[in-house]
Amino acid sequence: MEKIDIADLYRKSGTLEGKTVTVCGWVRTIRDSKALGFIDLNDGSGFKGVQIVFEDGKIGNYKEVARLNVGTAVSVTGTVVLTPQAKQPLEIHAAELCVEGASTPDYPLQKKRHSLEYLRTVAHLRPRTNTFSAAFRIRSAAAYAIHTFFQERGFVYVHTPLITGSDAEGAGEMFTVTAFDLDRLPRRENGAVDFSKDFFGGHTSLTVSGQLEAECMAMAFGKVYTFGPTFRAERSYTQRHAAEFWMIEPEVAFADLDDNMALAQDMIRSVIRAVMEKCPDDLAFCNQFIDKGLLDRLNHVANSDFARVTYSDAIEILKKENGRFDYQVEWGSDLQTEHERYLTEQVFKKPVFVTDYPKEIKAFYMRLNDDGKTVAAVDLLVPGIGEIIGGSQREERLDVLERRLRETGMNEDAYRWYLDLRRYGGAKHSGYGLGFERLVMYLTGISNIRDVIPFPRTTGSAEF
Amino acid sequence: MEKIDIADLYRKSGTLEGKTVTVCGWVRTIRDSKALGFIDLNDGSGFKGVQIVFEDGKIGNYKEVARLNVGTAVSVTGTVVLTPQAKQPLEIHAAELCVEGASTPDYPLQKKRHSLEYLRTVAHLRPRTNTFSAAFRIRSAAAYAIHTFFQERGFVYVHTPLITGSDAEGAGEMFTVTAFDLDRLPRRENGAVDFSKDFFGGHTSLTVSGQLEAECMAMAFGKVYTFGPTFRAERSYTQRHAAEFWMIEPEVAFADLDDNMALAQDMIRSVIRAVMEKCPDDLAFCNQFIDKGLLDRLNHVANSDFARVTYSDAIEILKKENGRFDYQVEWGSDLQTEHERYLTEQVFKKPVFVTDYPKEIKAFYMRLNDDGKTVAAVDLLVPGIGEIIGGSQREERLDVLERRLRETGMNEDAYRWYLDLRRYGGAKHSGYGLGFERLVMYLTGISNIRDVIPFPRTTGSAEF
Repeated sequence: MEKIDIADLYRKSGTLEGKTVTVCGWVRTIRDSKALGFIDLNDGSGFKGVQIVFEDGKIGNYKEVARLNVGTAVSVTGTVVLTPQAKQPLEIHAAELCVEGASTPDYPLQKKRHSLEYLRTVAHLRPRTNTFSAAFRIRSAAAYAIHTFFQERGFVYVHTPLITGSDAEGAGEMFTVTAFDLDRLPRRENGAVDFSKDFFGGHTSLTVSGQLEAECMAMAFGKVYTFGPTFRAERSYTQRHAAEFWMIEPEVAFADLDDNMALAQDMIRSVIRAVMEKCPDDLAFCNQFIDKGLLDRLNHVANSDFARVTYSDAIEILKKENGRFDYQVEWGSDLQTEHERYLTEQVFKKPVFVTDYPKEIKAFYMRLNDDGKTVAAVDLLVPGIGEIIGGSQREERLDVLERRLRETGMNEDAYRWYLDLRRYGGAKHSGYGLGFERLVMYLTGISNIRDVIPFPRTTGSAEF
Repeated sequence: MEKIDIADLYRKSGTLEGKTVTVCGWVRTIRDSKALGFIDLNDGSGFKGVQIVFEDGKIGNYKEVARLNVGTAVSVTGTVVLTPQAKQPLEIHAAELCVEGASTPDYPLQKKRHSLEYLRTVAHLRPRTNTFSAAFRIRSAAAYAIHTFFQERGFVYVHTPLITGSDAEGAGEMFTVTAFDLDRLPRRENGAVDFSKDFFGGHTSLTVSGQLEAECMAMAFGKVYTFGPTFRAERSYTQRHAAEFWMIEPEVAFADLDDNMALAQDMIRSVIRAVMEKCPDDLAFCNQFIDKGLLDRLNHVANSDFARVTYSDAIEILKKENGRFDYQVEWGSDLQTEHERYLTEQVFKKPVFVTDYPKEIKAFYMRLNDDGKTVAAVDLLVPGIGEIIGGSQREERLDVLERRLRETGMNEDAYRWYLDLRRYGGAKHSGYGLGFERLVMYLTGISNIRDVIPFPRTTGSAEF
């Protein structure tokens, strides 16, 4: 007997009436009267479980089954019975019910609402709950939608290195990667650690971005994207920061800032539509139990053009409202989350691209505008989250880039290969970085990044 | 004028005759006579470039263009002219030719054959060569084919952690990840490094496998797969080992070793077919210049059932041929690459699954067979490479698993959560790991792993 996913059972329900099928999954709830019992069986293939009806005499082990604990793994062979009058469209009347793996009365996920904090302590089991089951299916669907979006448009997927000998943009603290035994470090004569003896022959770190390497690839393939993990060693206890997270970084040759924004808008809208089509039940659950406005917001975003405002104009708007902010803004200051959210939630009421930031608060590689003061940077702000994308047109002019490297105090020698891209057939090009976890938070309404990553790595915690 | 990818130009050639198009790319070759010139322009969208015809009088900057160096980035607007009598099906007669970024006479990729060793020293430019352009497009197509294979079959894509507090299987050396300044390490009273003060509150490493976490997810979603980076800190100078590489690890609940082999065979064949369909020109190049037998082999594998042999039977076969091996085999010894390749290339002449290895040479989590001596492990060996997949049915019996942990000297406490999966609704389950770079080597015929990774990390080298 071929087994069938419960999701397929619903998909093909019309053709299955009276057919014998086998399903395998875990007992979510079980109840019985004398000779008749019901199991809500879930196999994770979709949000919905299937009702198993088991009856004494119809199965040989009624007593054993009636005593099963929540969480037990079972395989069930039985007849599909359509139930158009009931809430669920079908149920399975068991002819055979095998216990694959028992559970215990103290199974940590009893049928009651658990706090998200408690569930983080059982991260190995929480994917079996409604919330996390939905969140991680949405995460998977979103990841695939991103690949599909770029692949269908002719982008080449590139794997940029995780271990790096250089600091990509001077952005943030990096983790050191070493094969040394830290209790037995080789030292130079002056007492300093001798990294030339380490595995790679020098000091190495975990990357904070694949952008610079992606630029190399864009100068060969025209359109590329990365999708891989990045790291920040910043001690942070906020709901929005993890030490390990996944980023998507498209990079496009012969593209300017406008092209960059058009691509970002296309991508976000395309991913939302794909997830709405693939995971309607999961989203409905999130809409009902996590964030009441979720579906309205996603529908709205999938069908509207994003707003655009320059940083300078945004500052003028915000300055009038300085009274409501913890941090006062003025031209030259970085936008805080409170400002970002005010812009997107109160002013524009939809996603908004903020462009042309002061060069002092952005990275050296962003293209200098003709005013000499701002760079062709763009951040995308979305309601409920704030910044979800940061990007720019890159500086393609060798002399300007060399000057910016010096101005910002970077080690020019470490960027020799990066400068080569401007020496040999450079071209105008643009790209951005999308924080994947931020996107999943946006798609689910989940407010803590720890709850959209299966096994989150945050300050003080690398469990499981 | 919307620009068009050169790959799309060929795809839509029938509809483009006489149309005006804009293409952007890099000059691969350029030649001219007095008033007429030809550029082979490549934009990386596919293997083939397009011939640009430029003529004095037709473009305003003929002299400038005629002097361009190889590697220059240009944008060209011109008319599509079909050339059914020529080798290439069409060419573009330029009306406007803009230099986007100049190159120099000493451009490191002159039109001649460069050694792969030389090209590794210019890893930031080598994607612009035929070999690496083909290899990385095939890499991208293969990655997407893997996602598509699993997503279409209802698998949930899971991101398992890169930074880990535990040693997944006692398999191989691990890199330490730390936020410490190694010149100022905090120490305990006994002089040992005090890892409790490190970022995560304990010693952490880079993962060697996401399998154990994938098992957690399989016990919730039934069918899951990972696709992410893994690491080995083993000093190795072979052609087949990198310190950082990508792995695909599917894990399936209610699946035994036979199901596991069926899935692996399906996946390999499906990926080969997808890449043959997506990248015919790239594969044709590899077949002509890298590995003459490539296409025959891929065709053969895509259409044949893989062989199966138990380890014990394989040893009997190999023992008869011990004379030809550097390492003699006997029952209990691990298979070396020479043995693996002999089996798949000489004996079976196709991919072969070797199953049921002695428990002593396999990991603690593999399911103990009834003979008490072997485990339900499986390796897939392929011609030209040797082992490409390693997998097993996992030990789902709590008591047996606890005994195996003790026998193999693992720290039982670190696997508490892993044992929980057997306490609460455990089920028979299986999975495997596919080394992605090995697969790309197999698909391209490229024999050095350094040449299928954009920026390889190997012993002594983490450049770019």
